[in-house]
Amino acid sequence: MSTPAKITPISGFPEYLPAERIVEQRFLDVIRETFELHGFSSIETRSIEPVDRLLGKGGDADKEIYAVSRLAGDEDDAKWGLHFDLTVPFARYVLENSGKLQFPFRRYQIQRAWRGERPQEGRYREFTQADIDVVDVGELSPHFEAEMPLVIADVFSKFPVGEFVIQVNNRKIPNGFYQGIGLTDVIGTLRIVDKLDKIGPDKVKELLVESGATPQQADQCLALAEIRSEDLSFVDRVRSLGVEHPLLDEGLESLANVIRTGLAHAPGRIVADLRIARGLDYYTGTVYETQFVGHEDWGSFCSGGRYDALASDGRNTYPGVGISIGVTRILGLLIGRGLVTASRSTPAAVLVALKDDESRDAAVAVATALRSRGIACEVAPTAAKFGKQIRYAERRGIPYVWFPGAGEPGDEVKDIRSGEQVPADAAAWSPPAADLMPAITRTS
Amino acid sequence: MSTPAKITPISGFPEYLPAERIVEQRFLDVIRETFELHGFSSIETRSIEPVDRLLGKGGDADKEIYAVSRLAGDEDDAKWGLHFDLTVPFARYVLENSGKLQFPFRRYQIQRAWRGERPQEGRYREFTQADIDVVDVGELSPHFEAEMPLVIADVFSKFPVGEFVIQVNNRKIPNGFYQGIGLTDVIGTLRIVDKLDKIGPDKVKELLVESGATPQQADQCLALAEIRSEDLSFVDRVRSLGVEHPLLDEGLESLANVIRTGLAHAPGRIVADLRIARGLDYYTGTVYETQFVGHEDWGSFCSGGRYDALASDGRNTYPGVGISIGVTRILGLLIGRGLVTASRSTPAAVLVALKDDESRDAAVAVATALRSRGIACEVAPTAAKFGKQIRYAERRGIPYVWFPGAGEPGDEVKDIRSGEQVPADAAAWSPPAADLMPAITRTS
Repeated sequence: MSTPAKITPISGFPEYLPAERIVEQRFLDVIRETFELHGFSSIETRSIEPVDRLLGKGGDADKEIYAVSRLAGDEDDAKWGLHFDLTVPFARYVLENSGKLQFPFRRYQIQRAWRGERPQEGRYREFTQADIDVVDVGELSPHFEAEMPLVIADVFSKFPVGEFVIQVNNRKIPNGFYQGIGLTDVIGTLRIVDKLDKIGPDKVKELLVESGATPQQADQCLALAEIRSEDLSFVDRVRSLGVEHPLLDEGLESLANVIRTGLAHAPGRIVADLRIARGLDYYTGTVYETQFVGHEDWGSFCSGGRYDALASDGRNTYPGVGISIGVTRILGLLIGRGLVTASRSTPAAVLVALKDDESRDAAVAVATALRSRGIACEVAPTAAKFGKQIRYAERRGIPYVWFPGAGEPGDEVKDIRSGEQVPADAAAWSPPAADLMPAITRTS
Repeated sequence: MSTPAKITPISGFPEYLPAERIVEQRFLDVIRETFELHGFSSIETRSIEPVDRLLGKGGDADKEIYAVSRLAGDEDDAKWGLHFDLTVPFARYVLENSGKLQFPFRRYQIQRAWRGERPQEGRYREFTQADIDVVDVGELSPHFEAEMPLVIADVFSKFPVGEFVIQVNNRKIPNGFYQGIGLTDVIGTLRIVDKLDKIGPDKVKELLVESGATPQQADQCLALAEIRSEDLSFVDRVRSLGVEHPLLDEGLESLANVIRTGLAHAPGRIVADLRIARGLDYYTGTVYETQFVGHEDWGSFCSGGRYDALASDGRNTYPGVGISIGVTRILGLLIGRGLVTASRSTPAAVLVALKDDESRDAAVAVATALRSRGIACEVAPTAAKFGKQIRYAERRGIPYVWFPGAGEPGDEVKDIRSGEQVPADAAAWSPPAADLMPAITRTS
């Protein structure tokens, strides 16, 4: 094969070395296993959608679409683009298959997506997301809004990443509150308050007043946004601001239900945080963000919310609630900063050594016996000196080297970390459970 | 979210319903698990490559590349295309990371690829491949050529698909043979003989004579191509044709080694078939194809071979041997024709029923207890009548419905297939192993 050009990475399109990929696989395995334990069905969608469908979604103006067309294409090639999230294709999938799906439909989807944005640390142009959504026809029961963060708490508590916190708000709270104090541009006000973390309260107040609020209204918006509680006390703190509106009541009741459920089933993981807004216009109820404690500067790793109309086909409306784990964002932090490592670069737990070329068949038979009991292994590539074969294992982090016939007539296996070598039978020996698969370790 | 256009599938971009996706997942799980047992490390590459790299690969002229560019792009957008296989990106990955990889490097890669070809049954424009390759620096030991089909035989023997056969040839055999009988256009001759299955021996002979062979030479080419054996008898049959060439000797020795290894470790799975050529020019030694017995008309589901130069960077050459499972092709046959089905459309083995809305917390606690022991479940969406909740489970194929408190004070669980309902403790009960995960069944 020819080598047409100098090889350089493409910015924003991350790739991993084998040991890093093992870390990624472990995270993906935990996510999938947990989603399935919670009864979500897997789907995958094609990577492309018609461009008009991708553009049809409101709100997220800063996204950039990658167009796809045949290189040798004719003029009337279909206008396709790579999907930039998993929500737009899921909404289309629900409409396309609505007659064949069972509602409420609980689905998870772990796939790549693409955005042509400027790459920077923690932002990628090709990335993997892991989404769960529950979607129903006509009406969606509110308890699903309380269930989402329980699933996410279950996933994140299995990651080797330390503490995390899921921040929850309900869009009806600021919505009703703003109307209750006489502000009518709810979305505009939300967008300004959403900048609180970046620009601080003084600047937010300034922007609110510029947009038409009185200083007193601006102060009330800030007072609401500063409310945060791990328990139900946020309700009284909002009430003490003295604002009345039916939407506010609805939002408080709904958020109280989410927090109450969190206290019962995932204590300490889920907090009410009334500054959380999420930029996307189509969220109508509960919204979620997730941060790692100590890495708040990286922003949210897992976000989502409730939408009254995930999809609509004229006859039916499909409300939904969903949340999306930014897998590549998480790994960009953990792998990029060396916070999590794998103990080896191969799944193999054992290298079967080779005394001479004639004994390869016997070595393969040992490997087959080990594999039949779920022990990953490989046979040494050459009958080099044993010292060289051991170094082959060492360089890959393979913990055990197997020596067929070394016990005359039996076999022996050496733990090359301790140097201990013991008699072993390929039909019976197993490594300690901790060595069977590569170990994933938090390094700081 | 708006609905900009009528929703229709895009031809050649397959998507599955949840129960079908469970079949796909099971196949992918078997492939991954088996590759890992054989000590292959996972990598994934980005979906795009520079177009000049995609075009730089010879041979496969009928492929069509999908170009990718920013929809709102400027003129000097990089020229990227979606990869059309996993070999080109792997070769680039090896060159890019050669200083960080351990050689011989055993890698597997399970990813989507894209080709802008005319879709038809068994051919897709977006599809998943599962590749293994072993690549080394400078020299690659020939025993890896014998190892590849053992791994594939291990994978396919775990699929619920009936009999399969891996057909092996060595390009040096026809290469040396053709030269030995005085034909110099080896590639041209191979391309004609490769059509044997499609157009038959008379037409092949005609084409060979048209291209300059004598009728006697054409007959000898056909006689070679008709040789097939499950044991080593092919060697004598080739010898009996009376042709001598050093490359022919090399090829026969190498193929005999592959077949001998197959007889020892995967008897009945691997046959010598001297008509197998593989279209791609860059194969230089062993080549593989795989067919399902009874579905030969679908062609090969799993192909590959040895290349002396998978990649080269001026200083080093990287020879390799690899084989690729056409996952979407296999599933297109098995799912498309309804030959394999899943017993349910969700991973959930249990639906926890809900007596009334107030008991949701208790139902969630049951679900949490079951999940902590690896039992996938979900809580009923509403406190409907129990008959309705049972039908909810039935429609999804969930085999068990759990009734908290039904045993007053204990719980009970019902197998809704048999109707049998028994006392059960969420901290101890497990379903039979066969019900824990969806069952995948061959239906004909």
